[in-house]
Amino acid sequence: VRIIPHEPKFFELFAKLSDRLAEAARYLLESMNGNVAVQTENLKELEHQADELTHEIITKLNQSFITPFDREDIHRLAAALDDVVDFIYAAGERIAMFRITVVPRDAHALAKVILAQAEHIQNAVAELAKGGAMVAHRLEINRLEKEGDRLKHRAIAELFEREKDAIAVIKLKELYEVLAIATDKADEVANVLESIALKNA
Amino acid sequence: VRIIPHEPKFFELFAKLSDRLAEAARYLLESMNGNVAVQTENLKELEHQADELTHEIITKLNQSFITPFDREDIHRLAAALDDVVDFIYAAGERIAMFRITVVPRDAHALAKVILAQAEHIQNAVAELAKGGAMVAHRLEINRLEKEGDRLKHRAIAELFEREKDAIAVIKLKELYEVLAIATDKADEVANVLESIALKNA
Amino acid sequence: VRIIPHEPKFFELFAKLSDRLAEAARYLLESMNGNVAVQTENLKELEHQADELTHEIITKLNQSFITPFDREDIHRLAAALDDVVDFIYAAGERIAMFRITVVPRDAHALAKVILAQAEHIQNAVAELAKGGAMVAHRLEINRLEKEGDRLKHRAIAELFEREKDAIAVIKLKELYEVLAIATDKADEVANVLESIALKNA
Repeated sequence: VRIIPHEPKFFELFAKLSDRLAEAARYLLESMNGNVAVQTENLKELEHQADELTHEIITKLNQSFITPFDREDIHRLAAALDDVVDFIYAAGERIAMFRITVVPRDAHALAKVILAQAEHIQNAVAELAKGGAMVAHRLEINRLEKEGDRLKHRAIAELFEREKDAIAVIKLKELYEVLAIATDKADEVANVLESIALKNA
Repeated sequence: VRIIPHEPKFFELFAKLSDRLAEAARYLLESMNGNVAVQTENLKELEHQADELTHEIITKLNQSFITPFDREDIHRLAAALDDVVDFIYAAGERIAMFRITVVPRDAHALAKVILAQAEHIQNAVAELAKGGAMVAHRLEINRLEKEGDRLKHRAIAELFEREKDAIAVIKLKELYEVLAIATDKADEVANVLESIALKNA
Repeated sequence: VRIIPHEPKFFELFAKLSDRLAEAARYLLESMNGNVAVQTENLKELEHQADELTHEIITKLNQSFITPFDREDIHRLAAALDDVVDFIYAAGERIAMFRITVVPRDAHALAKVILAQAEHIQNAVAELAKGGAMVAHRLEINRLEKEGDRLKHRAIAELFEREKDAIAVIKLKELYEVLAIATDKADEVANVLESIALKNA
């Protein structure tokens, strides 16, 4: 068993951080579902909490002589999780800032991909504390990232086909891109998680 | 006192680099004030000097066995200072390349934020050599970054409200974004400075 | 002579990776020459092979106790080479996704710059295995990056002068930017190569 008896704190903080991530992903999707403007204040609050947790992990890292896994990996994992939350928030911010009142189907599909990744991340982080296997979660998060990339590609190609209003093109293209970056950052989380698991196998 | 008697050179180089940064920020604001097209040649020269200083710091780092603070922190600090100058230059470049003849009020306000951050960075770098406290400078630079972010957000939202010419939207949106990235890079400088000060406290 | 007799594998992998890079650069230019839509499938395949090689280098790195040069430099070199291929692919992807049927002269010139850099990288990587000098290649790749930057700058300025269709501006501006990022990543490869050569001189 890989539990480090005296240092459960890092795992707790990572679990909390991945909870915020999943909550943010769920919130983004729900606001798109309801076709209501995203309440960016709520997303901003989640993003702020994720920032605080990341800061707490880094501070704890600087104060700890013994860490449950590589110092650099703790740093990379915290930064990668924080990045996903940042881009989920950025997507909500675009919807509000650009006053996108009807969120297109493909943006909705991308938000679903992000939520699916976030749930795998939550489970993978829980496994990490138990020394469990990462590979299945990693593969699925990688697959979802590829799906997100295809979705983005198709959505932008269709946008240029169909939309003649250049200002609408600017807004939706950026929304798709920001959502796809979130799936990409989730992919980075998965790779860090697997690399940690392999080193500690 | 934290002065390292035989290695004042790093501090000198950082002081010079932060001087170039402040000069570039001042120059960008002045060109906006006068509503004249930015003389990008002058900004390019400052950016070039900052590049040379950064290169000198890295070369010196690779040659030194003893450094006044962590090697990695010296690297991060030089890179972060250089990044701020790069984005100040990038902002001036956009004004020239897009032929923005009247710089909007919000871009002007963002350039003021960058200059205020640059002056705090100059003072903080001077403090660093004396082992002085960073926290007040860091907090103020962080606050300015948040102000810059709000300014950018409002400016872009208003741009989409008001401006019906898509080409003008492309130009000004990018100018606001580049200016906001400069404030963000200044924030990174502040965080590195405080982290160095804490480790050496 | 700097050949490490028992570890030629890293050099072989880097040689293969730089071959893929040069092949991708050649392919991108040829598709532009023929004024045909880029066959993104071919570029995607090269990008995929580069990914696999990069992954193989990192895996080998994690398993090796002895490496021909600094572990961190091996990591940086692999990542930088992979980045160039990614942005060459991204340029091809833009041409397909935006249905750019006539590739403008300046995009063509930028693709030529990337190919010239790629050929210098191939030669420099071959020199590295022999402990040869990097500086001439590095200087030429740096010069080419500056040329690419000027080309991009001029192309975008002219685009805003001439093109009144905002949707066409969005497409071509992004194509120029992605091509210029590829030249920038090639510059990073050159800097890593020279830094490795200097450390091992």
